[in-house]
Amino acid sequence: MYKATISITLRPSILDPEGKTIQHALTNLGYDAVDQVRMGKQAEVWIDAASEAEAREVATEACEKLLANPVTENFEIQIESASREAVGEGTA
Amino acid sequence: MYKATISITLRPSILDPEGKTIQHALTNLGYDAVDQVRMGKQAEVWIDAASEAEAREVATEACEKLLANPVTENFEIQIESASREAVGEGTA
Repeated sequence: MYKATISITLRPSILDPEGKTIQHALTNLGYDAVDQVRMGKQAEVWIDAASEAEAREVATEACEKLLANPVTENFEIQIESASREAVGEGTA
Repeated sequence: MYKATISITLRPSILDPEGKTIQHALTNLGYDAVDQVRMGKQAEVWIDAASEAEAREVATEACEKLLANPVTENFEIQIESASREAVGEGTA
């Protein structure tokens, strides 16, 4: 079992209104040191694969076909081996 | 100038309907190897601080006061030094 941590961010040339809004809010809270904020998504995907390369291939295809918009977003994948016991299935 | 990459994830005990939906979609696309998906947010924050410790302090307070919900979310902060030139301000 492998865990892919996928970071999906807007391409630098794309305007980020959410990031701008958060930056203004932080400035209003007194955090003038905050120069800029860019928001993105993160996906943690547990993949039952035979090798790290196979897990990376599944994660890459998942990004290209579903998770990331190829026109406006970039994605980065980090793969680590993970134990079989699933992350909390959410009981709350 | 420092750049904080903040990863905000749901606590393991919290149900993640978005993650479940994406997992089903990936299975329908034929990716049966995908065992589970947990979605989260990522914030990239450029901080004009004198030291890494100071930048980490600003990023931590920004999470506690605004970016992360203390009841349902965890956050992790990675700090790296960054060049002054701002990331693309978004021209598109």
